[in-house]
Amino acid sequence: MTTTPSLQPSSQEIRDAHTRILPHIHCTPLISNQSINKIVDAELFFKCENMQKVGAFKARGATNAVLSLSKELQVKGVATHSSGNHAQALSWAASLIGAEAHIVMPSNSNRVKIEAVKGYGGKITFCKPTLSSREATLEKVIGETGATEIHPYDNIHIIAGQATATIEMLETAGALDMVMAPVGGGGLLSGTALACHYFAPTTKVVAAEPEQADDAFRSFTQRKFIPSVNPTTIADGLRTSLGEITFPIILNYVTRIFTVKEETIITAMRLIWERMKILIEPSAAVPLAVFLEGHDELKGKRVGVILSGGNADLDNLPWSK
Amino acid sequence: MTTTPSLQPSSQEIRDAHTRILPHIHCTPLISNQSINKIVDAELFFKCENMQKVGAFKARGATNAVLSLSKELQVKGVATHSSGNHAQALSWAASLIGAEAHIVMPSNSNRVKIEAVKGYGGKITFCKPTLSSREATLEKVIGETGATEIHPYDNIHIIAGQATATIEMLETAGALDMVMAPVGGGGLLSGTALACHYFAPTTKVVAAEPEQADDAFRSFTQRKFIPSVNPTTIADGLRTSLGEITFPIILNYVTRIFTVKEETIITAMRLIWERMKILIEPSAAVPLAVFLEGHDELKGKRVGVILSGGNADLDNLPWSK
Repeated sequence: MTTTPSLQPSSQEIRDAHTRILPHIHCTPLISNQSINKIVDAELFFKCENMQKVGAFKARGATNAVLSLSKELQVKGVATHSSGNHAQALSWAASLIGAEAHIVMPSNSNRVKIEAVKGYGGKITFCKPTLSSREATLEKVIGETGATEIHPYDNIHIIAGQATATIEMLETAGALDMVMAPVGGGGLLSGTALACHYFAPTTKVVAAEPEQADDAFRSFTQRKFIPSVNPTTIADGLRTSLGEITFPIILNYVTRIFTVKEETIITAMRLIWERMKILIEPSAAVPLAVFLEGHDELKGKRVGVILSGGNADLDNLPWSK
Repeated sequence: MTTTPSLQPSSQEIRDAHTRILPHIHCTPLISNQSINKIVDAELFFKCENMQKVGAFKARGATNAVLSLSKELQVKGVATHSSGNHAQALSWAASLIGAEAHIVMPSNSNRVKIEAVKGYGGKITFCKPTLSSREATLEKVIGETGATEIHPYDNIHIIAGQATATIEMLETAGALDMVMAPVGGGGLLSGTALACHYFAPTTKVVAAEPEQADDAFRSFTQRKFIPSVNPTTIADGLRTSLGEITFPIILNYVTRIFTVKEETIITAMRLIWERMKILIEPSAAVPLAVFLEGHDELKGKRVGVILSGGNADLDNLPWSK
């Protein structure tokens, strides 16, 4: 694609997002690990969004989206359907301004995730575990409350917020050959791609996706939207389909999408736990898995890697099964 | 005790140790966590020695001890008996100068720890799992090689090295009411106490110890050395007895030793994993356990806490038993 997508945050909107959210979020550490560098024969800089507020980069986008609303809309609250990190992030972000976050969650959601949303003050409405029920229930909640829907990724304020992780990474790491992010709905990836496009135009942006949820890879390769259908990957944050806003940005500014096997994701996750002494969730391990599977074009490169989140289930670790 | 211990590193020796080891070790992050602060009603600053080289503060002392040897002695190598983090740290530190580290380990040592020592280049000699066999075997190895024994904690270069974690903490955190460290053999605690004595004399130093290995607490209270006998605590780094050098320093410069229950150690360990998204080993959780058990004198205080290590066994987590 050679034309600019019709809907994308500008460089100024990304800069403004960063200024807006900085008082609330963590400027997370950027960590290198010599033994991992040796294993993968590259120089990796890990942006530790696992240590971000609510344990995931999602806090950035959610904060930017909530703070970008007019005072009139803020009073009416925000709403979304999500059972993942976005639900926690939106609940937390709304609480920053004393607004309500209405979260529609499937009735079979993980109890830990339900408690986490409640812990951040989110108001949960349960629905049936189908997309149509999620959407219908969300519509009903919005009709009753006047809350503004904040989509987990297909929203330019969310994308601008997620882009800010890369701004910080570029400031700290210096010149990078490449930045790699995992891709699910594409909010993080499209923000990452735009941040490099605007602020480090010689830095390539590449993506990492599980083979077991390779809809983005297929969409990207065939240059047409292909939805994610019943993905089974352990990387539960990457099971969603691309969005109408994120897909064109990705087509335009991303160089390549790599896919990886499930067992490599688990190996990569454990390697980061053991060598870096930090907790990451499976989705966050997918980029390192790409390096572990070995690709000549990555050898010897200086690469920024976004560790997207740290909300792992300590009672259910993939290597103890 | 009101007299200065006869054997302790001077402030200049601690400063020199820091200069000596800084090119080799990590200046580890100092991290606060709002939700943990809220739970314990205090302001804690965690010095992340779990992210130190070899995953523990032991890298500091070992590096200082190895680099403090004359060239003539360095050539002959170093030796110790240890099955814990000191064995890995000494192996790693010796490798920095191309020297050999002779490690005497009980034949029933954990396979993961044996592999770790080998991974850092340590030369292992196995012995029977008794103190007398460890000491006899070490003496034999030293007789054959001329290597210098580097005791895990009862050594002023080791103590000076461990003290450097507190120098960095004080530089970053600003004025602290207190610094808390776990106590096993007392190398970390005595170094911490001296660093505060020299560089932050109004900052109290307190210690944390498992009830199931409370020899330091009893020694401190009764002001006479009481050895650790068959301790059963999960905090395996804290099972050792105080030393002839460390005990007088602790008596002189430490204000109080707190003891904690085993179940609180596990709760504290999990809390740090979940909220801070970092891996710590059980021994490193003992200070937070003190706060969780609740003590009026700790409320509202600004306290530096040393997270001593991160070498947890991922196949054997205490909450999955």
